This record gives sequence, structure tokens and C-alpha cells, in this order.
Amino acid sequence: MKAEILCIGTELLLGDTVNTNATYISQKLAKLGLDCFYHSVAGDNSQKIKSAIDVAVKRAELIIITGGLGPTDDDITMQSVAEYFNKELVFNEESYQKIEEFFSSRNREIPQKAKKQAYFPENAKVIANPAGTAPGIFWEIENRHIIVLPGVPGELHKMWEDSVQNYLEKFSKYVLVKRFMKFFGIPEGTLGQEIKDLMESDNPTVAPLISEGQPDIRIVAKAKTKQEAENLIKNMEKQILDRLGEFFWGYDEDTLEKAVGEILIRKNLTVAVAESCTGGLISSKLTDVPGSSSYTKLNFITYSNEAKIKTLKVSPDLIKGYGAVSEPVAREMAEKARKISKTDIGLGITGIAGPAGGTSEKPVGLVYIGISADNREEVHKININPAFTRKVIKCRASRYALNLLRLFISKT
Amino acid sequence: MKAEILCIGTELLLGDTVNTNATYISQKLAKLGLDCFYHSVAGDNSQKIKSAIDVAVKRAELIIITGGLGPTDDDITMQSVAEYFNKELVFNEESYQKIEEFFSSRNREIPQKAKKQAYFPENAKVIANPAGTAPGIFWEIENRHIIVLPGVPGELHKMWEDSVQNYLEKFSKYVLVKRFMKFFGIPEGTLGQEIKDLMESDNPTVAPLISEGQPDIRIVAKAKTKQEAENLIKNMEKQILDRLGEFFWGYDEDTLEKAVGEILIRKNLTVAVAESCTGGLISSKLTDVPGSSSYTKLNFITYSNEAKIKTLKVSPDLIKGYGAVSEPVAREMAEKARKISKTDIGLGITGIAGPAGGTSEKPVGLVYIGISADNREEVHKININPAFTRKVIKCRASRYALNLLRLFISKT
Repeated sequence: MKAEILCIGTELLLGDTVNTNATYISQKLAKLGLDCFYHSVAGDNSQKIKSAIDVAVKRAELIIITGGLGPTDDDITMQSVAEYFNKELVFNEESYQKIEEFFSSRNREIPQKAKKQAYFPENAKVIANPAGTAPGIFWEIENRHIIVLPGVPGELHKMWEDSVQNYLEKFSKYVLVKRFMKFFGIPEGTLGQEIKDLMESDNPTVAPLISEGQPDIRIVAKAKTKQEAENLIKNMEKQILDRLGEFFWGYDEDTLEKAVGEILIRKNLTVAVAESCTGGLISSKLTDVPGSSSYTKLNFITYSNEAKIKTLKVSPDLIKGYGAVSEPVAREMAEKARKISKTDIGLGITGIAGPAGGTSEKPVGLVYIGISADNREEVHKININPAFTRKVIKCRASRYALNLLRLFISKT
Repeated sequence: MKAEILCIGTELLLGDTVNTNATYISQKLAKLGLDCFYHSVAGDNSQKIKSAIDVAVKRAELIIITGGLGPTDDDITMQSVAEYFNKELVFNEESYQKIEEFFSSRNREIPQKAKKQAYFPENAKVIANPAGTAPGIFWEIENRHIIVLPGVPGELHKMWEDSVQNYLEKFSKYVLVKRFMKFFGIPEGTLGQEIKDLMESDNPTVAPLISEGQPDIRIVAKAKTKQEAENLIKNMEKQILDRLGEFFWGYDEDTLEKAVGEILIRKNLTVAVAESCTGGLISSKLTDVPGSSSYTKLNFITYSNEAKIKTLKVSPDLIKGYGAVSEPVAREMAEKARKISKTDIGLGITGIAGPAGGTSEKPVGLVYIGISADNREEVHKININPAFTRKVIKCRASRYALNLLRLFISKT
């Protein structure tokens, strides 16, 4: 069954609201194994809503419409849907009573306008809205399944879970299982070339995606049972790891900081961070992970040269000789952070986050990352695109640092 | 001119990616006074892309297409756009050289596949992509204006600002000016009641919105000239400030850290931060602001008690007597951070970010914030909803701290 999602709301077309409803419904349809080929958005205008329904009816059998069910004058979705199919709206006493109850349970009188929300096309099945006053409908008409739901995300989610999920399960012919594999340090193009043949697979499908400047691979398997789908994924995953294992670091909702945290805990290690250009972002990411107090003791944000010299005890000669953004300074920051904080590992980072402060020799985006352990140390130089904003450069630099830290402690 | 946004990407239809590009472009079009009547989304499938273009061509004169310009085999947007209009793609030597430079500046060889990104429909004008390898196009064909842009948000934004904005300005008939007023410390319901009558205004329109748990007010004015629209906004703004001025702190893209930074620079003050529960997030936010090196010297993330005692010189008796999450410890952290870093202001924060570590006496979400100057100090206790995730609690705590810091230095 081909599905299409139509979201109604001028606020979406003005960019005041992000269309998370389309994302939510898409995720649900994908899990049900129902193909969604298009999304569309129209404003609160009857002619435009009908025109969008017309487009959808021609290319989908299941049309899920959200938004525009409120009590105000610009909420005209239900009316427009009925008009498109040349049907009348009919008053539904039972729904009206529920709306009355909704208000009386909150000690409020039912507003005159709310009555409108108890009108539905004849023969449509009303979907109760336990979280608000706008019910939805299931409507089978002209060989199409029309589902209309409110646009308030909390109400939509509740109604989906309570009613829509169950209604749609009967159309679901298979199970869909999805897995994201996350990589670092390989350009999208190279990664794409490495898995070119695998991307031709129909089931599971394999596709590269970019997230925060680094590639993911999405594997989606379709099968009669979850177990079967997971086996398909497992086989594909193995083939990908054989080729790209060295760049792979995590799955699905994993983050680099979580990956780092897991290794630190497993190996019973602690880490200290001395940050200059990232200004606390690496520390903040590391402490986003529940349980991070077991490996975080004391970190430093040494922005000024004085702080580097007095607090971290970086040699002033090094800063004088090589500059604060340099390999030897990153190395010393890492080592001194480790020693002062009495941790197993130290990480030092110094660079130019911009927009000012760059030179032809040391451009914006230049970052040195030092990592130090008792018996081993590394310093890496990276160049981040100077066209990025300061915030993005900080973010990229912190991801590089976390990935290098992950690799370092994997070998420790 | 009627505009339509068409975003290409199977990841959108699977719900793997939220369609923030449609939101971004909608905001830009709204500001230009260009009407956008529809959004649509199609997957990475040539026939479906062409079908979506066909729908768009019939109802819009300006069609902005994003996504599917990458180097991999499933990136087929440019090819599909050309095919829809029965045109060939032509190799563009200049664009190819830029792509080569992009790779060589990163010491990487240009992948075979990247060559594909230098092919465009004949007569289309290439839009340079300073942040990536996928250029876009402006293309006037069959009385339509077609703009094709990459789907990576950072690249899209940069290209919009550098090229597209300027290209579209000539089509703008009236001016729409939007202003967000930002508030802290007032519940949405209370704010809504205070401006209830103003919300009935037609031009400018006034609406409350929630962003990161705090209320904004959006004012939108439409007029022939920018000046006229801005006058409408200015009058409305004045009425709002008369009622809610004490909670107001900024406009539009303002952030609390930027507001703090501006005051620090204006008053020639420096600040030091000692963070426990926020783990570096406040420092990171403060250093997101360009120029923040003029007021940031040395900050501390003192997660362990030992770090608080040895590095910050917080009295061990205080920690023993009151606990690390307590008013006296927050006060000392602020004072000692200021003294050790030799800054004008010190900020100390200690709390329980969860999910573990809470007790009935000191629940998850309890946070103490101390602020210290030479002649004055404050400590605030806040309780954040413990149902939030660790990350949200950190974020809320950092916003409270930045707002308190803003109020403190306003009076310094």
C-alpha cells in the first residue's frame, strides 16, 4: 500500500514550525513496512488543501492528513476533506459530549467554536483524542484510506499509539528493521565507492548518509519476521565491516562520547581535558554521558596564554617559539592536564575557531590535538574548512578529538 | 511569485531526518515576501522526483529543490531535473577544478565519483558551494525559476546567504519583517494572558512561541517598505515591553551567551567559570561567541570533590558539612574561580544532572548557582524537572546560569 503524508498549516510554510509530524508518521509507517513515497504541506486554505488532496489521491492509497482541526476559523481541514469528496459534514453527538467533558473536567465552559470539532464526513469512523478536543477520522472512500489527525504533536502521538497503529497493522505485510552504522575519518565519496556493489542490494537496502560531516550507512531489511530481517542486516553488516571496519565506531543512537565513555569504564581509565579552541565543548560532551563522573575529575579551559602557562604549566618558551596553536603546545597541554588531574589519559586541544585570528600560516580551522598517557603520546594536526561558523568548527574539532581519544584508548 | 519547496531524500520519507531545510527556506522566503504555498518531499528515485517536479511546475513559478547532489549513485537530483525538462547535463570545467581544490586542500585525492558533481544542465548558472563539493544551480526554463541546492544544511545555508538571497531579492513585492522577542523567567500561560489583546492585531501579528522551555513572542509586519514594516513592529514592541520588560532579554538570533558577552565587552569585564554539573557547557556556550577570548581566560570543570578542594581551594569542611551540591559550595566555587583566574566576575555551578545521584533531600535537577564580584555575591537555588534527560537538565541549568550572570553584570 502506497502512503502519502499531507500536513496542513500556514505556520509550516512560514518556517515557524518544523514539520516533525511528517518525520514521526514516516518513522511509524516505515516500521510497519508501509511505503511512503511523498510528503506534502499546504496552508490553511480550502482550495489549496483540496488541490493537495487531489495530488495525493492520484499517487497513494493511504493518505494521512494532519493539522487544521482546531476550533478557530482558520482550521478548515475536515471541511476541505469532505468537500473534496463531495460529502457533507454531519454532527456527532457522542464526540460533542466528549469535548464537553474535556472542558468541564478542567472547570471551563465549552466555547461556542468548539462545537465545530464534532462534525465529520458521513461514514467516517471517529478517532478519539484523549489529549485534546480535536478528534480525527478513518475514512474509506473511493478506494482510498483517508486518516485525518490533529497537528499538535502530543495529541497526534497519543492517537497514533491508541488507535492508528492498530488500524494500520492489518495493511502491513512485512516487518522493517533499520540499522545505522557510524564511521569517522572516511570521506563520503570514498565510502560510497567501497560499498557501491552493496548499494545495489534490494533487501536489505544500503545507503550512505551524512550526519555532522561524517558518513553513516543505513541498512534497511524487510522480512516476514523481525528475526529474519535482523539476520539480513547482520549479514550485510559483516560485509561492510570487512571493508570499512577500521573507520567504524558505532550504531544507531550511539555518540562518540558514549563510545569513549564505555571504553574508559571498561578499562577503568580516567581522562583529563585541557581545552583552548573548543572552550569546554569536549568536556561538556564527555559529561553528557550518564555515569561520566567515574572518569571525569578535573578539566581545564585554558583560553589565555597566561592560563596555559600558570595553571597548566605549559612552558612559556614553547608558546613563544611555536605559538599557542602548535604541535608542542597541544602535546604539553595533554601531558600537563593528565599530570595535574592525576588521570590515566590527558587530552589537549588548541586551534583557531575563528572568525578572526587566522593567518596564512595558521588559518581558521587549524587545530592540534594531543593525547597523552604514561607510556605513549600522540599529536594530530587537522584542518577544518574555514568557511564554517565558529560554532561548527568547535563542533567538528570536538568530534575529531573524541574520535582520536576513542582510538587511543582502544589501544591502551 | 508563487514558490514551492521540493526536498529530495529517502531519509526524509523514512523519518530518519527532520526536514529542517524546508523550514529554513520557508523562513527566508517569508522574509523576502515571496509566497510559498506548498512543500513536498520525494525519495531518491528518478521517476518520483520528476513526478514531484511536474506537480510543482503546475502550481508554482519558483521551485527550490534541495538534496540528492552528493557523489554517490543514489544522488540523482541534477540528472532528474535535467531529464524532466528534456535537457542534457554538461561538464563544467571550472566547477570541477573547484572540487579538485576542495580535495587537494585537504590532502586528499579526488574520488572518481566526485566528477559527477561538475555536470549541470546547459544554460543553468552554477552556484558555488564554498562549504562542500556539490554546487547548485539557478535555471530559468519554460517560464519557471528552478533553484537546486545541496541537502547538507551547512552548505545550503552558506549558499543561500552568499548567492540565493541576492538572486531572489529582485522578485520580492512587499516586505515582511519578523521579530522574535525573547523572555526568561515567565511561564508561557502568564505571558499569553498579558498580551491576549495584542494577539488580536492583524498587522503586525503577535503570537507566543516556546523555545527551549522559555517563551518568545513573534511579531510579523507586512508593508510596502522595510521601514514601514519596522515601524509597525517598533510600536508593537513598545507595548509589549511596557508590560513584560522585566523578563525581556533579546531579539531574534540573540543567545544568552551573546547577551552576556556584549555586556562584558561593553563594561570591560572578564569572567571565570567553575562548573560541576554542567560539565563545561557554560564555558562552551560563552566561547561560542566570536571575540569571547577578550573575557575568557581560565575556566574549570571540577567534577570530583578532590578537584574542588585541591584546584579551586574550596574548603573541605564545607563539602563535608553541606555536600558538594549546596549553597556554600556554589558560593565558594564562584569566588575561588574569580580569584584564581584573576577575573572580575566568577560563576560557580553545582547540581545533580542525573539520572543517578538524586535523593529525596537533593533530587535530580537541583542546582546551585553562585556569582561573585569583588564587592557583591549571589547564590541562587533552582529546581529543574527531574523527568528531563541529563542533557536537557545540563542545558536548562546552563541557561539559568547565563541569565543570572546577565542580570548580575547588568548591575555591575
